Amino acid sequence: MQINLLSVLDYAGVAMFAASGALMAARKRQDVVAFIFFAAITGVGGGTLRDLLIDAPVFWVQDAGYVIVCSLAAIGVYLSGGRGVDGPALLWLDALGLCVYACLGAAKALAMGVDPVICVVMGTLTAAFGGVIRDVLAGEPSILLRRELYITPAILSAGLFVSLRTLGADGAWAIGAAVAAGFFLRAGAIMRGWSLPAFGQNVKD
Amino acid sequence: MQINLLSVLDYAGVAMFAASGALMAARKRQDVVAFIFFAAITGVGGGTLRDLLIDAPVFWVQDAGYVIVCSLAAIGVYLSGGRGVDGPALLWLDALGLCVYACLGAAKALAMGVDPVICVVMGTLTAAFGGVIRDVLAGEPSILLRRELYITPAILSAGLFVSLRTLGADGAWAIGAAVAAGFFLRAGAIMRGWSLPAFGQNVKD
Amino acid sequence: MQINLLSVLDYAGVAMFAASGALMAARKRQDVVAFIFFAAITGVGGGTLRDLLIDAPVFWVQDAGYVIVCSLAAIGVYLSGGRGVDGPALLWLDALGLCVYACLGAAKALAMGVDPVICVVMGTLTAAFGGVIRDVLAGEPSILLRRELYITPAILSAGLFVSLRTLGADGAWAIGAAVAAGFFLRAGAIMRGWSLPAFGQNVKD
Repeated sequence: MQINLLSVLDYAGVAMFAASGALMAARKRQDVVAFIFFAAITGVGGGTLRDLLIDAPVFWVQDAGYVIVCSLAAIGVYLSGGRGVDGPALLWLDALGLCVYACLGAAKALAMGVDPVICVVMGTLTAAFGGVIRDVLAGEPSILLRRELYITPAILSAGLFVSLRTLGADGAWAIGAAVAAGFFLRAGAIMRGWSLPAFGQNVKD
Repeated sequence: MQINLLSVLDYAGVAMFAASGALMAARKRQDVVAFIFFAAITGVGGGTLRDLLIDAPVFWVQDAGYVIVCSLAAIGVYLSGGRGVDGPALLWLDALGLCVYACLGAAKALAMGVDPVICVVMGTLTAAFGGVIRDVLAGEPSILLRRELYITPAILSAGLFVSLRTLGADGAWAIGAAVAAGFFLRAGAIMRGWSLPAFGQNVKD
Repeated sequence: MQINLLSVLDYAGVAMFAASGALMAARKRQDVVAFIFFAAITGVGGGTLRDLLIDAPVFWVQDAGYVIVCSLAAIGVYLSGGRGVDGPALLWLDALGLCVYACLGAAKALAMGVDPVICVVMGTLTAAFGGVIRDVLAGEPSILLRRELYITPAILSAGLFVSLRTLGADGAWAIGAAVAAGFFLRAGAIMRGWSLPAFGQNVKD
C-alpha cells in the first residue's frame, strides 16, 4: 500500500521535473525531439547520478516506464504550447517535487546501508542535479548560481528525513515532516524572497 | 568474421568522433594536449555513459587501444593542420559514424538483456553524447540546441535496429537497414535542410 | 605508516581542491550553501569519475570524512573572506596537489589491475576533472581552454609514477620523483609562462 503511494509519487515527481525540462526546450524554441531529450535529462538526471554513486542499478534502465513518462510529459508540453505547465502552478509543484525527491533519494541510499551523512548528500543530488544538468546543457546560468533558496530546502528535507529515520521514526511520518519543513522554506523563498547572506561584503576581488 | 568487421567499424567510429573533437580544439587554437583531451572525450564519451548506465565494464578502460586511437587521431589532425578532416568529408563520415554507432550502442545493451525501449535510448546516447560533452567543455552552443536533424537520425537508426533484432532479423541485415535509414534522414538534413517544426508559433514567452 | 601518510596527503589534497572550488563561489558572490556545493564538487569530482570508470566503490560514499572536510574548507573560506587562501599560496598548493593527486589516482587504478596506459589517464582525470566540472558549473571558460600548462604536468606526474612502478620502483620513491617532475613543469608554467605551441599558425579558419 505504502509502496504504491511511493510509486505514484515517484512517477509524478519525474513527470514534473520532466515538464520543467521541456519548458526549457520551449524557451529555446526547439523541436519535439529536443523537448524529449531535455525532459528526460531533467526528469531522471538526479536519480541517475545517485544510483551511479551508490552503485545501485540505474532506476530507469531497469524500468522503461520512467523514460516513457518523460516523453509523454515532453509531448504534452509541446502540444499544449506550454499552457498549464508554465507559471505559478509549475513553480509550486516544483517546490513540492524538490522536497519529496530529496526524501525519496535519501531513502533509497539509507536502504542500501549508506552512511547517514552521505544519504543527505544523495537526497540533495537526487532532487537538484537534474536541474543543474538541464541548465548546463541549455547554456543557461546554473540554478546553483541563483541566490534564491533552492538547494537549501532540498538539504533541509533530506537532512530532516534522515535524522528522523535514524532516530526510529516511521517512514510516512518522516517524509511528511521533512517535506513540510523543506516546502515551508522554499515557499518563503518564493513568496518573501528569503535568502542566505551572499559572500562579498567582506572581500575585495 | 563478423566480430572482426564490428571491431574495425568500432575503432573507425571512435577515430572519427575523436577527429571531430580535435577539430574543436583546432577551432579554439589549443595545444596538442588539449587536442588529445577533446578527441578522447568526444571519441569515447557516449560509449562511456552507456557502459556506466547499463553497468557494463567501461570499454576503453578494458582495452587501452581506444585511448591510443583517439590520441593518434588528435595528433594527426594537429600535424595535418586540419587538412583532409575538415569540410564535407568529415561531415559525411560523421553522419555515417552517427548511425553505425547508434546501432552498435543499442546492440551492446541488447546483449546485456536490457529492455528494448532502453536499448534505443542507449544507442542514441552512444552516438550523440560524446558531441554533447565536447560542446559543453568547449563552451559552445550544444548540438542539442541546433535545429538541424542530428539526434533524430540516431534515434531512427537505433530504433529500427532494435525493432528488427527483436523481430528476429539477422544482425548484419538489421545494421545495414538501420544505418541506411538513419543516414538517409541525416543526408536530407545536410543537403536539403530537413528539420522538425520548432516550438514557438503557438506560444508567447 | 605509509598508509597514514597517504591518508593525510589525501585529505589535504581534497581540502585544497575544495578551497579552490569555494574561491570560485566567492568570485560569484554566492551563499554558504553554494560554497559547500562548489567545494565538494571540486574536491571529490575527479576521484569520483575515476572510481566510476574503474568500477571501484566511490571513495567519498564509503567515507563521509571527505564531504565533511570539503564542507569545513568551504565554511573556512566563507568566514575568512578568502584571506589566506587566495593568491600565490593557493596557486602553489594547487600545483602540489595536482601532482600528488595524479599519482594517487594512478596508484588506485594500478592497485585494481588496470592497464598502465589507462592508469595514466585515471591519474590525470583524478587531478584535473574536479576543476573542469567546477568551471562548467560556474559558467567560466574551462581550465581545458587556458593555454597554460595544467593538464600536462598532471600527465607527466601520472606517467612517470606509472612507469617507475611498472619498472619495480618503491611507491614512496616513485611518488617523490613523479611529483617533483610534474611540479617543476607546473612551476615553469607559473613563473616563466612555459607553454606548448598553439595550433593555428598553419591553418585557416
